[in-house]
Amino acid sequence: MSQYLTEKVQEKRKAIDLSHHLSDLSRARATSPLKGLARYFGRPDLISLAGGMPNEAYFPFAAISGDALVPDSFSLASNQSESSLSWFWKLFGSRKEKTTSISIPKYPATKDDITLKVALQYGTATGLPQLQKFINELVGKIYQPAYSDWTTLVQTGNTDGWGRAVTTLCNPGEAFITEDWTYPSALAGSAPHGIHPVGVLMDDQGMRSEELRKLLAEWDESVRGCKRPHVMYTVPVGQNPTGVTMGLDRKKEIYDICVEYDVIIVEDDPYYFLQMGSYGAKLDRASQAMHADPESWLSSLAPSYVKYVIDYQGRVIRLDTFSKTIAPGSRLGFYTCNPRFAERLERAGEVSTQAPCGFGQSLIAQLLTTWKYEGYVRWLQGLAVQYKSRRDFLLDALREEFHMQVSVGTTSSWKGCTVYTASAKPKTGSSRMLEKRAYGSKALFSLVPPTSGMFVWLKLHFENVPGFQPDEEPNTMEMKLWVKLAEAGVLIGPGRYFASDQEDASPVDGHFRIAFSYASEEDFTKAVKIFGEVLREFFQEQ
Amino acid sequence: MSQYLTEKVQEKRKAIDLSHHLSDLSRARATSPLKGLARYFGRPDLISLAGGMPNEAYFPFAAISGDALVPDSFSLASNQSESSLSWFWKLFGSRKEKTTSISIPKYPATKDDITLKVALQYGTATGLPQLQKFINELVGKIYQPAYSDWTTLVQTGNTDGWGRAVTTLCNPGEAFITEDWTYPSALAGSAPHGIHPVGVLMDDQGMRSEELRKLLAEWDESVRGCKRPHVMYTVPVGQNPTGVTMGLDRKKEIYDICVEYDVIIVEDDPYYFLQMGSYGAKLDRASQAMHADPESWLSSLAPSYVKYVIDYQGRVIRLDTFSKTIAPGSRLGFYTCNPRFAERLERAGEVSTQAPCGFGQSLIAQLLTTWKYEGYVRWLQGLAVQYKSRRDFLLDALREEFHMQVSVGTTSSWKGCTVYTASAKPKTGSSRMLEKRAYGSKALFSLVPPTSGMFVWLKLHFENVPGFQPDEEPNTMEMKLWVKLAEAGVLIGPGRYFASDQEDASPVDGHFRIAFSYASEEDFTKAVKIFGEVLREFFQEQ
Repeated sequence: MSQYLTEKVQEKRKAIDLSHHLSDLSRARATSPLKGLARYFGRPDLISLAGGMPNEAYFPFAAISGDALVPDSFSLASNQSESSLSWFWKLFGSRKEKTTSISIPKYPATKDDITLKVALQYGTATGLPQLQKFINELVGKIYQPAYSDWTTLVQTGNTDGWGRAVTTLCNPGEAFITEDWTYPSALAGSAPHGIHPVGVLMDDQGMRSEELRKLLAEWDESVRGCKRPHVMYTVPVGQNPTGVTMGLDRKKEIYDICVEYDVIIVEDDPYYFLQMGSYGAKLDRASQAMHADPESWLSSLAPSYVKYVIDYQGRVIRLDTFSKTIAPGSRLGFYTCNPRFAERLERAGEVSTQAPCGFGQSLIAQLLTTWKYEGYVRWLQGLAVQYKSRRDFLLDALREEFHMQVSVGTTSSWKGCTVYTASAKPKTGSSRMLEKRAYGSKALFSLVPPTSGMFVWLKLHFENVPGFQPDEEPNTMEMKLWVKLAEAGVLIGPGRYFASDQEDASPVDGHFRIAFSYASEEDFTKAVKIFGEVLREFFQEQ
Repeated sequence: MSQYLTEKVQEKRKAIDLSHHLSDLSRARATSPLKGLARYFGRPDLISLAGGMPNEAYFPFAAISGDALVPDSFSLASNQSESSLSWFWKLFGSRKEKTTSISIPKYPATKDDITLKVALQYGTATGLPQLQKFINELVGKIYQPAYSDWTTLVQTGNTDGWGRAVTTLCNPGEAFITEDWTYPSALAGSAPHGIHPVGVLMDDQGMRSEELRKLLAEWDESVRGCKRPHVMYTVPVGQNPTGVTMGLDRKKEIYDICVEYDVIIVEDDPYYFLQMGSYGAKLDRASQAMHADPESWLSSLAPSYVKYVIDYQGRVIRLDTFSKTIAPGSRLGFYTCNPRFAERLERAGEVSTQAPCGFGQSLIAQLLTTWKYEGYVRWLQGLAVQYKSRRDFLLDALREEFHMQVSVGTTSSWKGCTVYTASAKPKTGSSRMLEKRAYGSKALFSLVPPTSGMFVWLKLHFENVPGFQPDEEPNTMEMKLWVKLAEAGVLIGPGRYFASDQEDASPVDGHFRIAFSYASEEDFTKAVKIFGEVLREFFQEQ
């Protein structure tokens, strides 16, 4: 497509003016009048008695420090037994972590030092300069936006990021586009403002482009009760809750439609670096080593919507967070977007969080500048291998517990995918006859192994529950089974909580979301056993 | 007044139901559907594969720590030379700070330990339990609310605190009551929502009760364009920008009016612990030792609006912040209010910041639990003495630079106060004659020494500028002088930035806000000299 810039000739251009998307609330946000003083701040000999700042002598910390793990703490070998062991010993401390000490003093030793004097003082909503510099390097090298005036801005995690974005772009009464299944807090944040989601049907790459086009082309304001949506909220990698990941071609298709219908894309991408590749049989896995070379690994990842081959107009607001790559308690993330939107998002920050916490900002900035870009990429690659091991371990355990039939998907949502369909295994000690019967028995659930993220998404075959009435609400079955599982000691995510439309949740199937991000091997093994027992009983297969 | 509970018989009662004050936005905020899982969380043997939480093994910090100042780092002696020296050596490092090391490990050694495993994981919007416990102890002992179900809730600083409160209480188009001069970011946060301030005239205790009553009694919806305000934003201690502090009797008067007209009071009280007593002449100061006994010191402070002798109904939302007592970069504060409001404010937190940063929460919680309540009170008392020394130093310097006439105020805003009015001193080496002339010369500015906070508020006598036209906009004079000061190397706060009504700023006088919280002695001395020179030139007194 001619409008896409080629990789070789990456023409730098300006984002187009998309100011007409700003909400009334956002337009009304003014720069704090005190910012008018800023032009005098540059004078080195200026004595300021203007700001209500406590002197740093009164900060009760002379220094803070951290025992930081080394960037290569986690192996890049994707060999199952070794890498699963590596998360095992981390959890139970049978091997000591290798750490280096990083420290933030109150006062600088050299000009560019990160200090408590600055980090713990009032600061701008743009955060610590050293952190901003690192983030800019990361975005430039990894996400590679097309236009020259792309801007990054810190926020306090992607929930804050989306909250500020949706009120910056949407007026009350408006709708935004999202995946049919999505992150509940994204909806909980916009709903009180009277801004509601419209779900688009998904497949194994996420939002379907033909469904999106249909939705926009056929939008009827008089039927829908509001004007055609001009904002999209999407989680394109390791989607929450379905785990699916969107590749370059689909992103280009979606982007083209968004250009045609003038839609702003808010890309919430917390799982970007948890892209771990496809799930293979245990025996084949030794040969599937993770790319050892960081550059090849990075270029193997699905590109961000902001990448120059896609967002040539600057209509994407990308949300990154350190929640999955450092820790959720960081409450730190950042926007990448055009400068016009960034400026309004900064104003929204000034009157809410002001700046992210200085303890967190300084420790994370010090960690990242100590690791450097290369060290952080190595850390991320190690994490991806860990998540691959975790996914593989969970799927292997499910294949141990159930009989898994592998087939090529034929439904619209799983067309052409490798689908695993689970049925009950015969009980231990059963005869060959029994085994044969069991292997031909009814489907309990199906799944497509995720290639990114933290979640396995199960489709339950409640139609195979004896006595199932086709007009019975599947959500009721889902909750019944969910409660039985919880009572038996396993908590998973009920699918209905992730429906973009809570009132009219898709009535076709029940779903569960299983997170493989947290539990220990031991707990996974126990949980899958319990899951098997409860499911067999529920489907009356024992 | 009979409705007030006596100190001796502090009857514990429930807050009355004030739900009718909740805004549409607040009512629409729902608990995230995933919270429904909570009732299963208590089971110790439950294996959770529900939440999308990274395992703590992947947090790149094995531990964090801080060199914490000891609680008695700052002397309680208010002797000018000693305590001013104490801020002097802090700034220039000529004496070493005494510190103890505090540390937060990833995993607990004992059950109640603060750990990174918890602090850096996803948590609830109520924050770390250990921090909440400390905050509850503090509120119970110091602020002493009347009703038994008072609730505290962390936020990310009082700007976030007010932002959540105003959208929880007010609908677009509504007005709220505030002081005639106030904190600009409070207005910048509510304005985009179409919620606007109505200023009430002030005196040396802050908002005047008879003016408040008049405003509410005479409110005419058809003239004002909106219904009578039902929310008040007030900074009652060391008010920003005027520095004035409201005592118990005035608070009772204001509270009674708020009961009568059903107004919710949002008490933004960042300077509560910076109550330093009255300004006395240098020679008398040695005898004015700060109360050495912490309990007498605490009981000498103006009470909070939430105290049982005032808020018997639970109509006060108190905002506390650690910005002035620990550091602004903490981005941590807390609400104290009735449980109904607290629940809605918590929901607002869930969809924005989620929880305050875990690095900050854990370091601050560890600091406070190490210091304990007594240690923190000692720290606060030390801070108050520091701010007293700073205020005294600045006022002494102004008295050196200018001739200061002390009088009893007669204007409505300063009736009965000790007012200092500055005029130019004769030049060095001048004759007695010249000196006499100068001493009789015109007033340049007036001030009432603040008893709390960080600011000295100056009223400029622009009517004494030769060639002054009474119909000339004083704001123009204020900005002219402000620019001259900035060009000469001193930055202070222009009064107009703090006007509650930016369009119709009080036309009577120009004002400046000078912060004594930050600068060094050396800089104060330089700044006051420059201030003197620029003022004398501006008023053509040299």
